[in-house]
Amino acid sequence: MVKQVITLLTDFGYGDYYVAAMKAVILSISPNARIVDMSHCVPRWNTRVASYILGCCYKYFPQGTIHVVVVDPGVGTERRGIVVFSRRYVFVGPDNGVLIPPAKEDGIREVRVIENRNYMLEEVSYTFHGRDVFAPVAAHISRGIRASSIGRQITDYIEPGYSEPKLEDGLIIGEVLNIDNFGNVATNVSRSLLLGLGLGYGSRFEVEMNGRVEMLRLLPSFAYTEQGRALLLINSCEKLELAVNMGSAASLFDAKVGDEVILRPI
Amino acid sequence: MVKQVITLLTDFGYGDYYVAAMKAVILSISPNARIVDMSHCVPRWNTRVASYILGCCYKYFPQGTIHVVVVDPGVGTERRGIVVFSRRYVFVGPDNGVLIPPAKEDGIREVRVIENRNYMLEEVSYTFHGRDVFAPVAAHISRGIRASSIGRQITDYIEPGYSEPKLEDGLIIGEVLNIDNFGNVATNVSRSLLLGLGLGYGSRFEVEMNGRVEMLRLLPSFAYTEQGRALLLINSCEKLELAVNMGSAASLFDAKVGDEVILRPI
Amino acid sequence: MVKQVITLLTDFGYGDYYVAAMKAVILSISPNARIVDMSHCVPRWNTRVASYILGCCYKYFPQGTIHVVVVDPGVGTERRGIVVFSRRYVFVGPDNGVLIPPAKEDGIREVRVIENRNYMLEEVSYTFHGRDVFAPVAAHISRGIRASSIGRQITDYIEPGYSEPKLEDGLIIGEVLNIDNFGNVATNVSRSLLLGLGLGYGSRFEVEMNGRVEMLRLLPSFAYTEQGRALLLINSCEKLELAVNMGSAASLFDAKVGDEVILRPI
Repeated sequence: MVKQVITLLTDFGYGDYYVAAMKAVILSISPNARIVDMSHCVPRWNTRVASYILGCCYKYFPQGTIHVVVVDPGVGTERRGIVVFSRRYVFVGPDNGVLIPPAKEDGIREVRVIENRNYMLEEVSYTFHGRDVFAPVAAHISRGIRASSIGRQITDYIEPGYSEPKLEDGLIIGEVLNIDNFGNVATNVSRSLLLGLGLGYGSRFEVEMNGRVEMLRLLPSFAYTEQGRALLLINSCEKLELAVNMGSAASLFDAKVGDEVILRPI
Repeated sequence: MVKQVITLLTDFGYGDYYVAAMKAVILSISPNARIVDMSHCVPRWNTRVASYILGCCYKYFPQGTIHVVVVDPGVGTERRGIVVFSRRYVFVGPDNGVLIPPAKEDGIREVRVIENRNYMLEEVSYTFHGRDVFAPVAAHISRGIRASSIGRQITDYIEPGYSEPKLEDGLIIGEVLNIDNFGNVATNVSRSLLLGLGLGYGSRFEVEMNGRVEMLRLLPSFAYTEQGRALLLINSCEKLELAVNMGSAASLFDAKVGDEVILRPI
Repeated sequence: MVKQVITLLTDFGYGDYYVAAMKAVILSISPNARIVDMSHCVPRWNTRVASYILGCCYKYFPQGTIHVVVVDPGVGTERRGIVVFSRRYVFVGPDNGVLIPPAKEDGIREVRVIENRNYMLEEVSYTFHGRDVFAPVAAHISRGIRASSIGRQITDYIEPGYSEPKLEDGLIIGEVLNIDNFGNVATNVSRSLLLGLGLGYGSRFEVEMNGRVEMLRLLPSFAYTEQGRALLLINSCEKLELAVNMGSAASLFDAKVGDEVILRPI
């Protein structure tokens, strides 16, 4: 018996019935589906952060996993719902760019618009396509429907305009992608970008954020510096991260998602 | 192999072992049960909000699902534990009214007091009937016990006295039922009440809450107004909701659960 | 088909991809494992609280359950990862003491160091052994590998130095272990310690915390006193707890995890 995994990534939080309603719909259509919460704490409407979180963990799931993302500022407008079939996974969600970076990394095979009303709830609300469209479509996919029955194939899906780090006058100008429970500050500066610049463990940087400047070293792990000292890491998602050993870099730099970070290698 | 779904709705939050202990007890008795968290963020002891959340999503679950609710200000008193068998579902929880509105909507078949000690943990604590009574009873029900073995049938279960909206001098006086992660403010004013008054999409209202007055239109979705503008919606649970397109109505009106909202159709 | 239960207890919170990545790794290796969240809200790096929560609920899970704990201030250092086989359960996590008290209570059979690279992800990061070491080891154990293949047996695992309550001059000096969603304040004073001192329901205590002094009675449940009144309870984990009927003892005493509590029986 195949037990397809379906993951859910939303900005719904845990204080309402939204996540439960999606699970209810999935289990009603596909009783053997394995549902896994990816996160429901994406900052509201922030497709950028959602795409980062999805990109960090989609590839650890079993091949064939269906990843449903409902971070959907455009619900109730003309924005389309899409299904992206990549080499090893399926992604379901709004056509607002959020699904594309991880799907591209895995290798996009085809993208289809969700059009077949038979795969939606009978009544589709204006405000909750997670329950009425995306959950049922994912559940039907987990039962093995043909991709072509979902809707027509498209190539004009929206590509996200997420900013990449800029290199200017020897500076790396990046952006905060996420802050975790420990106050570690993940940026959009990737390990490969640093490697390309000849930077790695041991490199020193002047780091500026929100007017605060610190001289930090890039180290393999927290414990390579003293307790309470700040450092730079390559995090478990291959991004440059500001951290403090047994402390909070977010507090030190007063960091929020979206903040600019300026790095000067020295 | 039947895999009965058991849902859990509590005010336990996520910072303690309570939810895990309930799941442990369920899996020890009924290893194939599918456990789904409905929510654990009900405001503490607030049976009204719990009943609203349950009412919003119970019916999307597969027929036969067992819904367990532990919002239980009376734990350790003489309040009874009950099982409500409705047309398509089973509801398990304290006899404090919380289960009744959704069960009634579905059609109550019978209500039984939980009396059979064989369906409880050997030692029943004074303060945690979720683990010691409601979880094991639900698990035993998922294994197919006869309803009559649970305890005697009753008809004097507690009916909740949740306030309904009042109509006075052309005003609709309602109450805040829930505030979601986006700051949308759900009220106890239902779509059918509005329809009965000849009100619908396009209707305009003077909305007063906490001394703040706004002129708002009832619109199908957020995107029918400009970003940052307030509006009224029928939410995905068929209730009137105060909302702001890409903003927070809860902040605008300083709204809390239980606040009074006064609507004057104009 | 055996469906082994694997529980996860971490300080990761819900705002990142960490928990999802652990589940992804487990399901990739052991598709039939049942994964249950014990809690992800342990105060960061607080092995003491983690050990308390684990101790409160591990024993309610089915025999053979694998309990994975990732509260790991020493990640990236020389601290070892261990697997503790107790009489009825398996515990997986860092060798920092967190696993030992519950495993001891159940009866430790053997402790092994995690050494076999075949049971880890191919690339082991410096900062996320939850994903790269503990999750895959637990998943492999759920599939029935031989204990001896994990690594060599040890007896010098770290014993935690968690403080026990002190008895001085007729006073019981304890510590706050946890605060739940209701503001109930759990201490490290156990029921058996009180019984040994001849104290039980009805006993009165002068309770001092953070400079605040209250005269409280030990009662079976909240409802044995008036609403808004403070009391002492034996909680559902057999610990002495400060509580307020329909109120918050944490607010009354301004309590935080780790605070000292002084009890004078009177």
